[in-house]
Amino acid sequence: MKRILILGAGKSASHIISYLLKKSETFDWKITVGDLDQQLAQKKINGHQNGTAVQFDVTNAEHREKYISEVDIVASLLPFIFHSIVAKDCLKFGKHLVTASYVDKESMAMNEAFEKAGLLFMGEIGLDPGIDHLATMKMLDTLKSKGGDINAVYSFAGALIHPDHDTNPWNYKFTWAPMNVVKAGQGVSQYLYNFKPKYIPYNRVFNTAEDREIGNLGSFEVYPNRDSVKYIEKYDLESDGIGTFLRGTLRKKGYCKAWNSFVKLGWTDGTYKINVEGATYNDFVAQFLPTEFIQNNDDLKSALAEFLELEINDEIMDKLTWLGIFNNQAIGLTEASPAEILCKLLAEKWKLEPGDKDMIVMLHEVDYIINDEKRRLSATLINMGEDEENTAISKLVGLPAGMMVKLIATEKVGLTGVRIPIMPEVYNPILDELKEYGVGFEETDSLLPVNA
Amino acid sequence: MKRILILGAGKSASHIISYLLKKSETFDWKITVGDLDQQLAQKKINGHQNGTAVQFDVTNAEHREKYISEVDIVASLLPFIFHSIVAKDCLKFGKHLVTASYVDKESMAMNEAFEKAGLLFMGEIGLDPGIDHLATMKMLDTLKSKGGDINAVYSFAGALIHPDHDTNPWNYKFTWAPMNVVKAGQGVSQYLYNFKPKYIPYNRVFNTAEDREIGNLGSFEVYPNRDSVKYIEKYDLESDGIGTFLRGTLRKKGYCKAWNSFVKLGWTDGTYKINVEGATYNDFVAQFLPTEFIQNNDDLKSALAEFLELEINDEIMDKLTWLGIFNNQAIGLTEASPAEILCKLLAEKWKLEPGDKDMIVMLHEVDYIINDEKRRLSATLINMGEDEENTAISKLVGLPAGMMVKLIATEKVGLTGVRIPIMPEVYNPILDELKEYGVGFEETDSLLPVNA
Repeated sequence: MKRILILGAGKSASHIISYLLKKSETFDWKITVGDLDQQLAQKKINGHQNGTAVQFDVTNAEHREKYISEVDIVASLLPFIFHSIVAKDCLKFGKHLVTASYVDKESMAMNEAFEKAGLLFMGEIGLDPGIDHLATMKMLDTLKSKGGDINAVYSFAGALIHPDHDTNPWNYKFTWAPMNVVKAGQGVSQYLYNFKPKYIPYNRVFNTAEDREIGNLGSFEVYPNRDSVKYIEKYDLESDGIGTFLRGTLRKKGYCKAWNSFVKLGWTDGTYKINVEGATYNDFVAQFLPTEFIQNNDDLKSALAEFLELEINDEIMDKLTWLGIFNNQAIGLTEASPAEILCKLLAEKWKLEPGDKDMIVMLHEVDYIINDEKRRLSATLINMGEDEENTAISKLVGLPAGMMVKLIATEKVGLTGVRIPIMPEVYNPILDELKEYGVGFEETDSLLPVNA
Repeated sequence: MKRILILGAGKSASHIISYLLKKSETFDWKITVGDLDQQLAQKKINGHQNGTAVQFDVTNAEHREKYISEVDIVASLLPFIFHSIVAKDCLKFGKHLVTASYVDKESMAMNEAFEKAGLLFMGEIGLDPGIDHLATMKMLDTLKSKGGDINAVYSFAGALIHPDHDTNPWNYKFTWAPMNVVKAGQGVSQYLYNFKPKYIPYNRVFNTAEDREIGNLGSFEVYPNRDSVKYIEKYDLESDGIGTFLRGTLRKKGYCKAWNSFVKLGWTDGTYKINVEGATYNDFVAQFLPTEFIQNNDDLKSALAEFLELEINDEIMDKLTWLGIFNNQAIGLTEASPAEILCKLLAEKWKLEPGDKDMIVMLHEVDYIINDEKRRLSATLINMGEDEENTAISKLVGLPAGMMVKLIATEKVGLTGVRIPIMPEVYNPILDELKEYGVGFEETDSLLPVNA
């Protein structure tokens, strides 16, 4: 009988909890769900006989010791900043760990310790990162086994709104942590393009890197997602003479340039607080607009348009106007960072309404040469949520993590160390099982033009 | 007999060391100079009978205890990050502390402890911050005592190159820590303009805030310097209905827009390293230029011009070309941050040559109303260095700090707590004594146009 501890019972944990409780009936597992809010954990367990809800505060060493020491596997859906302290206790008590978050440097530094202890810390096994690794690695290994030379890898994913519920001019609603969207792209983004490393500072990360038409969903654009370059080695592509490697985030066409208005204004900065007691949204605009544009124009909207070098009737101005930033409405905060003020406004405007469904879109493209032919293998995943609670994103984050826990609990993998899911013994069973949940890729393979 | 400890014997410490050694002859002081490099400390003491050189490592608690506990006053010229640990030991051993650096939050948090201990931690008593506070506060107090209402305060300073030695198209050479210049303006800048708070993100801090003609030195421009707003309260201007308060850094006209090219490229980022082993400066350009500009142009210089939206013969392009960034020359580094690569290049090109003299320019303007007249009081300081070693900047940083030490050692001030030099008992004697060293302001007072 295996015992599993799931840390966190929030939105992102719903599907891993229900998946592992369901599987516990077959495999005779005991599942403990820990959350700061014990009632929330109780609710997610929903009376299942194999589930126990406990109050769990990750900053409390006694809680960590008590609950981590008594299980075999820990799955953490906590914010990523807590993974390394959970990992330290997993090492201490000899437990495996699974997370859906990026493996940070602090976690990576524990690789040897996990190896020596014969334990596995599998990170990046969610949606993105997660399913992207599974699908891309399967494509790469398949092509290489056929004798293909890999030239280029594009790996794009977006958490978006279902076309039927796409009712605002931004073609976007929040389906995940809003502040992550507000702060997206901060720091530097890096990728390899045409054999050159490319470094993209935050001030132009939303000058989109690529455009794509996807299925009958229309036009999308891509901005680069963090450090793509480090995955060239992880994907074992270093010796392949690869020229282009780009991981990116998908948005509906027009989003990125409009978002760049906030970057130019300085509204995405979360590093300092300003006093906005009694201030309105148009005060907020004026405080970030250079004085000369305000002096040169009769109204704030014209001033912002001139600052952004846009015509007053540009569709970006329509998007901004729709948000109400030129209104005399009170912000309703006192001390807040620009990012917090923007996040509050967007959370109101980009809220999932009752009945709204979300949409996950993933597109992986691998350019390769085989028998002197230049070809592109493309794999597309489109997955729709059920409603504003049962979202596609929570399903596609939670299921791969849950399936990874199952692979460990059923002793199907003997991996150790701090790893990401790039090996066949992980990607094959998980991609196969995901199909049972209606999560699968459509592949096409086509000849590329000679000059491509 | 007072004992004084000077921490740091580098360039910035030369004048405080020689000033205090000289004064020690009158006041019977003993001066200990501590530096990681004891020989450097020895050299700066230059055989003076009242001076002792010691090896001092600020990260070594025994060094701190040994040398701080045995003196009455500590003057720290160490990098600002070390001031708070020195301050903690000053508290522990009951010593006064003087620094020329900005008072950070960690130091400010010790205010009550310094007050309770009856000790003074005087920060920001160098050039800028330092002389700017002294001069501006004297102007403000004088105007207020005459019944003037303060409307606006502009406080500008620049560490520049003497006009006779201004031999490059940037009209700039390094006279102080180069990396501080490379990273200038990062984070947010804030000021008050026409009764509105203004927040300037890094991506447009070098879109200059103001232009000025100064004396017969020609045209200057200003970019805002950090958080001006917090000084409104410190300068006791909150109740004066002040509309504009701007602290800024002076550069010769044309510098800021050219510098902005580096910001746009992403070359001032010190937060991550890139591999430039074997790379040349034109590789460095290409790695930061969006691909489409490289593809659209025959050569890198045209590509960069298009990216920057400049004509190929724009004077900004001349400035960039003069730096050699389009050359096939090797960078000569392996792993380095973009800021380190840029800093290395500029340190070669903007080096003070033998015989070069530097120049300090300060300009303070106070707009006020008196007897229904709108007037501006301006104070200008222009000070030239002697040669590339005896710079104006090291003199103007070191002398006020040394004079502050003298005020404490001679018990002329009874201040306690963590303070900045805004009080008459500090600014009057130091501004007076600075005149003996040829450091003084020229004042003009004129009627402002009615619509100003």
